[in-house]
Amino acid sequence: MPDIIEPRVLKGFRDYLPEAEIQRSALVAALESVFRSFGFVPIDTPVLEYAEILLGKGGGETDKQVYRFRDHGDRDVALRFDLTVPFARFMAEHVDELYLPFRRYHMAKVWRGENTQRGRYREFMQCDFDIVGIDSAAADADIVLVIGSAIEALDAGEFGIRINHRGIFNRFLARSGVTEKSSAVLRLVDKLEKIGTDEVRRLLAEEVGEAAAAEVLAFIGEEKSFDDTLAKMEALAGGPGPDSDRLRRIRDCVAEGGSAGRLRLDPSITRGLDYYTGVVFETTLDALPQIGSVCSGGRYDELAGLYTTRRLPGVGASVGLDRLIAALDALERGHREAGFTKLLVLNLEDSFLPRYESIAAAFRAAGIPCELYPEKRKLAAQFGYAERKGIPFALLLGTAEAERGVLSLKNLSTRESRDFSTPQAAAAGLREWLKM
Amino acid sequence: MPDIIEPRVLKGFRDYLPEAEIQRSALVAALESVFRSFGFVPIDTPVLEYAEILLGKGGGETDKQVYRFRDHGDRDVALRFDLTVPFARFMAEHVDELYLPFRRYHMAKVWRGENTQRGRYREFMQCDFDIVGIDSAAADADIVLVIGSAIEALDAGEFGIRINHRGIFNRFLARSGVTEKSSAVLRLVDKLEKIGTDEVRRLLAEEVGEAAAAEVLAFIGEEKSFDDTLAKMEALAGGPGPDSDRLRRIRDCVAEGGSAGRLRLDPSITRGLDYYTGVVFETTLDALPQIGSVCSGGRYDELAGLYTTRRLPGVGASVGLDRLIAALDALERGHREAGFTKLLVLNLEDSFLPRYESIAAAFRAAGIPCELYPEKRKLAAQFGYAERKGIPFALLLGTAEAERGVLSLKNLSTRESRDFSTPQAAAAGLREWLKM
Repeated sequence: MPDIIEPRVLKGFRDYLPEAEIQRSALVAALESVFRSFGFVPIDTPVLEYAEILLGKGGGETDKQVYRFRDHGDRDVALRFDLTVPFARFMAEHVDELYLPFRRYHMAKVWRGENTQRGRYREFMQCDFDIVGIDSAAADADIVLVIGSAIEALDAGEFGIRINHRGIFNRFLARSGVTEKSSAVLRLVDKLEKIGTDEVRRLLAEEVGEAAAAEVLAFIGEEKSFDDTLAKMEALAGGPGPDSDRLRRIRDCVAEGGSAGRLRLDPSITRGLDYYTGVVFETTLDALPQIGSVCSGGRYDELAGLYTTRRLPGVGASVGLDRLIAALDALERGHREAGFTKLLVLNLEDSFLPRYESIAAAFRAAGIPCELYPEKRKLAAQFGYAERKGIPFALLLGTAEAERGVLSLKNLSTRESRDFSTPQAAAAGLREWLKM
Repeated sequence: MPDIIEPRVLKGFRDYLPEAEIQRSALVAALESVFRSFGFVPIDTPVLEYAEILLGKGGGETDKQVYRFRDHGDRDVALRFDLTVPFARFMAEHVDELYLPFRRYHMAKVWRGENTQRGRYREFMQCDFDIVGIDSAAADADIVLVIGSAIEALDAGEFGIRINHRGIFNRFLARSGVTEKSSAVLRLVDKLEKIGTDEVRRLLAEEVGEAAAAEVLAFIGEEKSFDDTLAKMEALAGGPGPDSDRLRRIRDCVAEGGSAGRLRLDPSITRGLDYYTGVVFETTLDALPQIGSVCSGGRYDELAGLYTTRRLPGVGASVGLDRLIAALDALERGHREAGFTKLLVLNLEDSFLPRYESIAAAFRAAGIPCELYPEKRKLAAQFGYAERKGIPFALLLGTAEAERGVLSLKNLSTRESRDFSTPQAAAAGLREWLKM
């Protein structure tokens, strides 16, 4: 006997067993349906790219986590660590074959060699959607509306979409004379929910002094309404501007588009990254605020500046699917199905095999997912299989049924049986039973 | 200005632009629907695994093509080069959490550093389906029926499914006294379509002598019918056996299951690999036999012998999706759609933006994929966008329509217009127009 190799996956990686994969693919399908309803189209890009393309002039924290190696042709290659960088390369390469504005979605795996002790996975899925080639309130609003419809489609309960604008924050920082410290301030403000107001105040004071720290905290506080908060922000930032006008227009569009109740103006949201230049978004589940944002994004001036001189402004967001699945499970809102089969044709007589196949075909022709137990075994084994796979109905045709000229359809939870004379009649009967 | 990095993908890799990705995802969805109708469930496994797991004790041709490297933790890892090996590891690891027989499908990318000069890609998709944990005619027949329904669902025209049994071939080889040369004989027989009968005869004669070569050629010839061919094979292999009985039972099941006309017994099919031990399948498009099999597979005794002492016999096949897409394009049967949007809400007055969003929401609520052109531009630009994206209808609401209190729905191909008084009425009107 040969040595056995221990079957195991790499740390931070995981298998999806049928129940988990069925759930994930149902959620992906729900997102896809929303993206398509808003005119977004799918693209795909290679998993492996030139490291130079993915990392650019890099050197940051992300770089250390990238799976990077030399391929057979001694090329310096890497596995993509997000879908944004490949999308930037894609747009620079194909913009002349496409059209602008371009609305794309891309749902696919990415890889980061992260520290798994923090519960992070090294292989996970991203679900990105962007509108590129335009800088307008309608595009910003569309992204908010897609977020609303997408999270609604995932059925994770009530949620809020928080919005802010980096432009008005920057005006405020300039007016407070702390522009040169803006990165540090943004980083600290971003930690507000994690470390609390007092700690942020203390750290801010260290960076910009107590007076400026107090101003920052006044600016990032939320008032009673969208309008009140915006008026306060404008006052502290030196008056109205294109940024506050943009926020008002987005608010009006979102209200008419049907997500009014969900949108909140939250001046503490900054999305740390220098990448964003306009609006930024975060989405929080009412029942689980502590898990953080389940869909975030914002507007950027330049998608693909590393690869083209062509200016490609855009706006987009990304659904944190893994985090949402964890949330659905925590909220007991996750749908766990073992399979799709609605009818198991039991195998009671091996000589009836061709008839069983003909019966199964009749059910499939009627749109009923159906399978045949592939060999004659004890009834208990066959019923056990049906139970394990969540199959609700069985069809029995043994010698007794054959003599009576019937097919017996059995509801496996109520144990109720009904007889039919033909497979077609049984299929119609089952459709009625299933209310299909 | 920073240096620009040339946007490009690695040789043998490719981007999927929306038309190609929409086509691919539609075909994947069609396959998925067939797999589910036969009771198959999806799984997923990591893209990256321990090289030891993927390559086993390897050393073959495949090994040289595998993308293999050391990760951050100095682990010897590799990108999967097929879906069979990860499935074997998966079953060995999870069999106790699952149930048998287990019917799974897995459609995902795999990577091989193949020679791209032969038109091969280094990243491509596999669509595998298997029934594991059982050795029965019904399971074999189910795979044939799934192949039939799957290729039919891809709408690639007429096709044939060819079947053979390695057992009867092996009996014949033993009887001809060339068992020790069986690998070489199988390899040569496998080349029949590529290099022709004469060349195979010549090469066979070199291996096993002229008399045995003539016997092999007699054995692999197809007779007038399934039964005639099988009778001939039995005669040359020393009479009936469990293998020829299995073929007859599969034929009967497939006939009753609805794919009778497509099944042919072709004794020249061997699927070269030593892996298969029972039936083997190939599928050929009538219009494009020269591209080779678009769906192949067979029965194996041991799926996971490298990772477990538990015996896991199975049967399965794999759809060659990339090959099929190329065939669909060659046959001009490929559906190329630029997008899903059925209605473009034109942007004629920036101040109407919130109304446009409200109109778009009404169409979406009626199940009509709809988008809003996100800024006011010349009509020609907006119509050009609609045309490029294949959007069939536009909705016009400018100052003139607003004064008349109407929304104007325009068929962009016939240029016909219809006026409606509310978005809901317009959505209902468009559903009628689209015969939704």
